[in-house]
Amino acid sequence: MVLESYLKEYKKLVEELLPTQIEALQMPSLLKESMLYSLTAGGKRIRPILLLATLEAFGKDKSLGYEAACAVEMIHTYSLIHDDLPSMDDDDLRRGKPTNHKVFGEAAAILAGDALLTYSFQIVTKANLSPETKLLVIEELAHAAGAEGMVGGQMADIEGEEKKLSLKELEYIHEHKTGKLLSFGIIAGAIIAGASENQLSHLKNFSYHLGLAFQIQDDILDIEGNEQLLGKPVGSDTGKDKATYPALLGMENAKEKLQYHMGQAIMELEKAEIQDSMLKELSYYIAWRQQ
Amino acid sequence: MVLESYLKEYKKLVEELLPTQIEALQMPSLLKESMLYSLTAGGKRIRPILLLATLEAFGKDKSLGYEAACAVEMIHTYSLIHDDLPSMDDDDLRRGKPTNHKVFGEAAAILAGDALLTYSFQIVTKANLSPETKLLVIEELAHAAGAEGMVGGQMADIEGEEKKLSLKELEYIHEHKTGKLLSFGIIAGAIIAGASENQLSHLKNFSYHLGLAFQIQDDILDIEGNEQLLGKPVGSDTGKDKATYPALLGMENAKEKLQYHMGQAIMELEKAEIQDSMLKELSYYIAWRQQ
Repeated sequence: MVLESYLKEYKKLVEELLPTQIEALQMPSLLKESMLYSLTAGGKRIRPILLLATLEAFGKDKSLGYEAACAVEMIHTYSLIHDDLPSMDDDDLRRGKPTNHKVFGEAAAILAGDALLTYSFQIVTKANLSPETKLLVIEELAHAAGAEGMVGGQMADIEGEEKKLSLKELEYIHEHKTGKLLSFGIIAGAIIAGASENQLSHLKNFSYHLGLAFQIQDDILDIEGNEQLLGKPVGSDTGKDKATYPALLGMENAKEKLQYHMGQAIMELEKAEIQDSMLKELSYYIAWRQQ
Repeated sequence: MVLESYLKEYKKLVEELLPTQIEALQMPSLLKESMLYSLTAGGKRIRPILLLATLEAFGKDKSLGYEAACAVEMIHTYSLIHDDLPSMDDDDLRRGKPTNHKVFGEAAAILAGDALLTYSFQIVTKANLSPETKLLVIEELAHAAGAEGMVGGQMADIEGEEKKLSLKELEYIHEHKTGKLLSFGIIAGAIIAGASENQLSHLKNFSYHLGLAFQIQDDILDIEGNEQLLGKPVGSDTGKDKATYPALLGMENAKEKLQYHMGQAIMELEKAEIQDSMLKELSYYIAWRQQ
């Protein structure tokens, strides 16, 4: 399948799966509306797509990964809701729409985030997988999303706003804030597919480099991107004096660093010895995307 | 063992277990401080103690429940951090100490809550139990803590502040906001102990009534309690025009309702046919406590 149709079809699949999980739950309607508002607000759905593509690269049926795919997208969504709050990044718009707290108020936004995070673990318990596999996925998800992963990265990011960051500090932030959850998609796909230890190790390295490449391109797009494609003003990070790769290294070196991580990513992917063609295409898309 | 020594000893045990889990993690120091601040801020530790007592009522070693006990207390702690935020209950003091966001700022408080919630699932995966048992505990915990449990109750509570509640609405709030997580302690203890379906069913009923009794006594204490024992001003809920059992039913009827739920709770506990003496004492303590 051509990459463009693949992305479109899998995004559609994920967007069909996501709300059905939440709609069936009994809860106050404002909470449900708030959860669904952000869950159905679009986005590239790149984390669940990477998970399904990894499963398929092992020749497995993608439906084995539906619950884990929904789980990672729910966690990504909760993190955006909380990040947008006034006491965090204080953003009014997300993908061209008012942010959750602008529509539902801060209390409902915080609670919708809490509920999505909590449900992401519950949904994995429902998957049609062995108990051992489900526990590995839950452990990996909690690690990627928690204090040693995404939340730790977000904390460092907020603290970093008040000082000049070193490259090492910037990489810590990016590896944790964005990288860990992106990596989870690939690692969970491999775990569910029953990857060997050797394969898992190469795919962890692959996902590490891919996560950094994703973030470097994000920084580059913030300067060179097309506002209409991005759905947010170009230069919004620079305006906030946020540390970025181009700001720290210069644009030329940032692009070289992107090339380096992509090279490493592809090398590691090949070493995993799986049917890697779609994962490779997805990697190039992630690194050179325009939005 | 006499109840008072039991409570003291088990509270000490839980308070020794809780920080060791977090201290070993690698994360930004501000995040760790914020998590530990609230986790070590005291409290009755009633949820983990109920869990350990339930295990022992089945003749099992309490150490089997250490991870689940820490998990439920971490979730209780995160819920207090988020509830105290300015956009929620806007509380400056909790157990006589400044609330988390007053010390660490709102962003760190939100993230500490997110990280505690996330870690609570991770810690259960580490328990020395069968994969099947751990998954049942995780599923139960997510259900009790999430949109169909505690978070749903908190949302209804916030929405309810703006209107006059019916008794049914008040019971929904209490059953979900406080009851579900309290019940979890008992249900998880029973699951880990390998309770029969019949025993589990009676213990679920027991925990439902006990949860409501806990909350009714909370409401009564807010009017008749001793400020020094409570660590907060008496009448703080009334001042906010919050719906409570005494406000809705009158003090006499509220106390009768407490009696009713305690009677039901003890009856269900006896039907479970376990060594129920300590659980019974704990129930009386919960219903008639003075703080």
